[in-house]
Amino acid sequence: MNTFGTNFRITTFGESHGAALGVVIDGCPPGMTLSESDIQPALDRRKPGTSPLVSPRQESDRVEILSGVFDGKTTGTPIALLVRNHDAHSHDYEKMKNLFRPGHADFTFQQKYGIRDYRGGGRSSGRETIGRVAAGAVAEKYLTSLGITIKGHVVSVHGKTGAQEIESEILAAKNAGDSVGGIAEITAKGCPAGLGDPVFGKLDAAIAGAMMGIGAVKGVEIGAGFAVAGRFGSENNDPITKSGFLSNNAGGILGGISSGQEIVVRIAVKPTASIAKPQKTIDAGGNDASITVKGRHDPCIVPRIIPVAEAMLALVLIDAVLEQRKYRE
Amino acid sequence: MNTFGTNFRITTFGESHGAALGVVIDGCPPGMTLSESDIQPALDRRKPGTSPLVSPRQESDRVEILSGVFDGKTTGTPIALLVRNHDAHSHDYEKMKNLFRPGHADFTFQQKYGIRDYRGGGRSSGRETIGRVAAGAVAEKYLTSLGITIKGHVVSVHGKTGAQEIESEILAAKNAGDSVGGIAEITAKGCPAGLGDPVFGKLDAAIAGAMMGIGAVKGVEIGAGFAVAGRFGSENNDPITKSGFLSNNAGGILGGISSGQEIVVRIAVKPTASIAKPQKTIDAGGNDASITVKGRHDPCIVPRIIPVAEAMLALVLIDAVLEQRKYRE
Amino acid sequence: MNTFGTNFRITTFGESHGAALGVVIDGCPPGMTLSESDIQPALDRRKPGTSPLVSPRQESDRVEILSGVFDGKTTGTPIALLVRNHDAHSHDYEKMKNLFRPGHADFTFQQKYGIRDYRGGGRSSGRETIGRVAAGAVAEKYLTSLGITIKGHVVSVHGKTGAQEIESEILAAKNAGDSVGGIAEITAKGCPAGLGDPVFGKLDAAIAGAMMGIGAVKGVEIGAGFAVAGRFGSENNDPITKSGFLSNNAGGILGGISSGQEIVVRIAVKPTASIAKPQKTIDAGGNDASITVKGRHDPCIVPRIIPVAEAMLALVLIDAVLEQRKYRE
Amino acid sequence: MNTFGTNFRITTFGESHGAALGVVIDGCPPGMTLSESDIQPALDRRKPGTSPLVSPRQESDRVEILSGVFDGKTTGTPIALLVRNHDAHSHDYEKMKNLFRPGHADFTFQQKYGIRDYRGGGRSSGRETIGRVAAGAVAEKYLTSLGITIKGHVVSVHGKTGAQEIESEILAAKNAGDSVGGIAEITAKGCPAGLGDPVFGKLDAAIAGAMMGIGAVKGVEIGAGFAVAGRFGSENNDPITKSGFLSNNAGGILGGISSGQEIVVRIAVKPTASIAKPQKTIDAGGNDASITVKGRHDPCIVPRIIPVAEAMLALVLIDAVLEQRKYRE
Repeated sequence: MNTFGTNFRITTFGESHGAALGVVIDGCPPGMTLSESDIQPALDRRKPGTSPLVSPRQESDRVEILSGVFDGKTTGTPIALLVRNHDAHSHDYEKMKNLFRPGHADFTFQQKYGIRDYRGGGRSSGRETIGRVAAGAVAEKYLTSLGITIKGHVVSVHGKTGAQEIESEILAAKNAGDSVGGIAEITAKGCPAGLGDPVFGKLDAAIAGAMMGIGAVKGVEIGAGFAVAGRFGSENNDPITKSGFLSNNAGGILGGISSGQEIVVRIAVKPTASIAKPQKTIDAGGNDASITVKGRHDPCIVPRIIPVAEAMLALVLIDAVLEQRKYRE
Repeated sequence: MNTFGTNFRITTFGESHGAALGVVIDGCPPGMTLSESDIQPALDRRKPGTSPLVSPRQESDRVEILSGVFDGKTTGTPIALLVRNHDAHSHDYEKMKNLFRPGHADFTFQQKYGIRDYRGGGRSSGRETIGRVAAGAVAEKYLTSLGITIKGHVVSVHGKTGAQEIESEILAAKNAGDSVGGIAEITAKGCPAGLGDPVFGKLDAAIAGAMMGIGAVKGVEIGAGFAVAGRFGSENNDPITKSGFLSNNAGGILGGISSGQEIVVRIAVKPTASIAKPQKTIDAGGNDASITVKGRHDPCIVPRIIPVAEAMLALVLIDAVLEQRKYRE
Repeated sequence: MNTFGTNFRITTFGESHGAALGVVIDGCPPGMTLSESDIQPALDRRKPGTSPLVSPRQESDRVEILSGVFDGKTTGTPIALLVRNHDAHSHDYEKMKNLFRPGHADFTFQQKYGIRDYRGGGRSSGRETIGRVAAGAVAEKYLTSLGITIKGHVVSVHGKTGAQEIESEILAAKNAGDSVGGIAEITAKGCPAGLGDPVFGKLDAAIAGAMMGIGAVKGVEIGAGFAVAGRFGSENNDPITKSGFLSNNAGGILGGISSGQEIVVRIAVKPTASIAKPQKTIDAGGNDASITVKGRHDPCIVPRIIPVAEAMLALVLIDAVLEQRKYRE
Repeated sequence: MNTFGTNFRITTFGESHGAALGVVIDGCPPGMTLSESDIQPALDRRKPGTSPLVSPRQESDRVEILSGVFDGKTTGTPIALLVRNHDAHSHDYEKMKNLFRPGHADFTFQQKYGIRDYRGGGRSSGRETIGRVAAGAVAEKYLTSLGITIKGHVVSVHGKTGAQEIESEILAAKNAGDSVGGIAEITAKGCPAGLGDPVFGKLDAAIAGAMMGIGAVKGVEIGAGFAVAGRFGSENNDPITKSGFLSNNAGGILGGISSGQEIVVRIAVKPTASIAKPQKTIDAGGNDASITVKGRHDPCIVPRIIPVAEAMLALVLIDAVLEQRKYRE
């Protein structure tokens, strides 16, 4: 449903054009200093309108802490974070309320619930990630205090690597009224060995579920990932020496448990579904139709997915860190 | 931990060389005919010793239903399935009890628990999947009654496709005392639209977690998967017409919810970690050592992972099918 | 933690004197008409200041729906409900921040978390129930549409029954700077047979946990309750006839599953812990001290616990109703 | 469903007259010595046939550890415990398969599942508690190593206290073909302060749910319990001094969190539903009928419920102990 995690558990809510979005964090360790200024920078990183490569929408997205913090410290009780919605152009969507946008969740929401908030994608909007990013910032602050650091970057866009190549690919797509996909990598340094559970609760399984749970992600790989399919075991096994592992094809996870090496995750991100080119679709009555998705959309979502993916990795790791503590007598 | 699923919930137990392995299934709908003969064929498919391409170990693996079935029908109470262990060559492992096999979970289990059953990999052995496959057979029987069918096949091994190419790659690796990785695809036909939850409980997120939770899997992709990273949105969006979708790049899932199209999943499987070639490692005391993993290992685990991956997909789907029923008034 | 329920799942947050209190409801069936006016009356019933028998505090407690409702109908996505705090007399508590009030959670919160929001009891305040009551109102609306109705009443206060007796007991306690306990009964009519799970998820187990999870409740009984301890089986068994059961000692639940009879629950409510009489306690440094709890406290919490207990019963029942649907093919 | 606990999680299975009963324990801390001889005595305490006061059935109930223990120590992986069924007189039940025994779960199982294993009550039999008691023995062993001890005793039977009075009440009921109810008390000494969560996860809420989840329990109270309803706050609050609390009306739990005092729980146990006297009931076709329940039943279940209630308290406490560890940095 809308809850993620077991020990550090977040529950998000809110639609793109509703009154507000937010998250309740349950299980944050008590005694950590926390204020809005720890969270706001993460929201600022994810918001659009900051470069010609992303959507020109202006989303102010100011976070307010509603509970769980007293005298500047977390108390162990739920931390509710609220972001009010502004700058919603709901009328852009009015015309499309009876059309299912290809590549979007419009059709499947209607099938599942028999009703949907069509304004800005409603709950399936990218704005849903505000709650994740805000909670992730809290998790990251705690992880940092343990020496664990998380970083993401764009690996490639439309098959191209290098900042300039990528920029021109995105702008070309934008100018063509189209969009492009790409690959992002997220890593975590400083994780202790021993995190994760060996069967269904494998750390890599949790990461894969977390990443594929981000809209637009269609593939996840750990360490060498799909490249392992073309290898010999003698190439792929990471030799162990008394100075440590000699390679990291495993991406920091063996048998579902962290090895102490860097954790390395890559995700495949599809081209933004909203494009200005006409596409075939049907209307609510089941009739053939054509749709051109107007609005202020990102020509490539890869750069903006980075803070979300970092947040999800932070959430998985803090959960595993707290879980592992039950083994301490 | 060792439980998977919410509505159709399985809990597995057992080590490679312990007394027994098994699974408890909770939430199986009542009134379905069920006997050992519905489950045994799936176990027979996963067992080794059936061809020169796989391990020559002989594992009889007879399943016994301990509970939850009365007069040949499920009653809605937990179904416990038991498989006794036989043919365990524990002495093969005695020599390695103080060595951490590269690519295996030996090192990380030790880090996590401070103790491990080193015989045959203990709980991290491939034999742990017996419980999954047995439970998956029960799930598949139920899904079949709803018109949902699941199938898996080997896509490639060591970069090669085609039965003969694949066979010779595997035999070559075996003869060299090495192993090879590959890619498998699993599909589900007949799924109704509307399965899955739109945020953290996305159907593709559940599938990704389930697949990455199988030992040796290092990557998961849905539909077009990593290929989306090189595409335009205008290529990748699946057009909708009154006769249905015109393509299936989404792999049957939009916004985390099934669309009614075929669900398509691919997994990257690493080369078997156990190889006969000498490898660098350390012993329990932290000293450098060399290890040659003797035993009767699969030179390529891809063919044997198919029934496991099918089982995991069945478990995800039956869970989603039961979940979706709560929307019916 | 702060989440209750499986299918209709609520997560509450907020402290007595923090910025706000609220709840996120996840799993509410889509398509139900819902507005603030469906929830506000329940909050008005629980609030103090409405009679000389209860606290004179004025809590306006206006609820705002933040998400999950579109065009006046639930959409199946999370419904976040917010109540801003006002009228907080935090300075009343400043003097007591280093004292542990007897009968309160001050001491144990400090032991558990090493930190606590001492203003108005923080998270252990009765105001925490605002989220429960708001969510319960949504659940009750849905249950009513299925013909299930929930009602609570005061059975006795300080051993006395009858409205006038009870009123004079409460006023006498108030005038003495003391407080009194009592018993409340909550019933549900119209429940179908078949709700609840037979082992750990027994419907009465869920109800007992829900009721004992309300602050001040020290006992729970179902049907004949503690009276069964003095009976013969021949008296206590409810005979079954083709016109129905001839008695209801079971309180509507047999073997953990609803029988279709009225569900009958009683709870023992302790006297309000906050009293104006001096009491022995210790301070944060562990020194003996005396405390007199000033403030605007209820001399008897039984009347005000009724809407909370009704809400908890509604939450248990809606969860069971949705759970039972997975048995429908 | 059939799983209890979060950190120390048990899943039970099995019917009275099926092949076997058992339990899978997940989350048991690694490194604890464990063998069948740690568990068997608890099963021997719960079994019938040991005195004229209880059922004369002979149930050998030998437990076998199937997994999770290596070289005499727990490994952190699931511990599966198996008890094969013997001495089942299924033919006793054949005649009653179309009758719903009053006070039993026959009617409600049929309503819920549309099918039931009528032999010996199937899953609703008291034999279902074998899994709980076996798992409880493992939990108790661990708790004992932390200095936490759990004890239960019979408080009263049919309103009478004192061993001789109780014995004669039970024998009188037995001779009359009837049964009697009673009250049991279970306590835990040595619990540290800080266990339990303050809102829905209150320690007393967990205990109440655990106890009411035992068949035949119709009431639960903590500390002073229902007696609080007749008290003043000034009587009921437990004064705190630097030498500790001066009384224990709270039963060791304040605001849902353990205070470090003894935890005190009492349960009301109904008279055994199976009695030899004729009772009114209906058959599967809905026709009026009379039933006389033959078999070897306990005239009073209170003595035999003690080991079960101790087990449930142990399971709640170990779960809370492990949960609390996540607060340790």
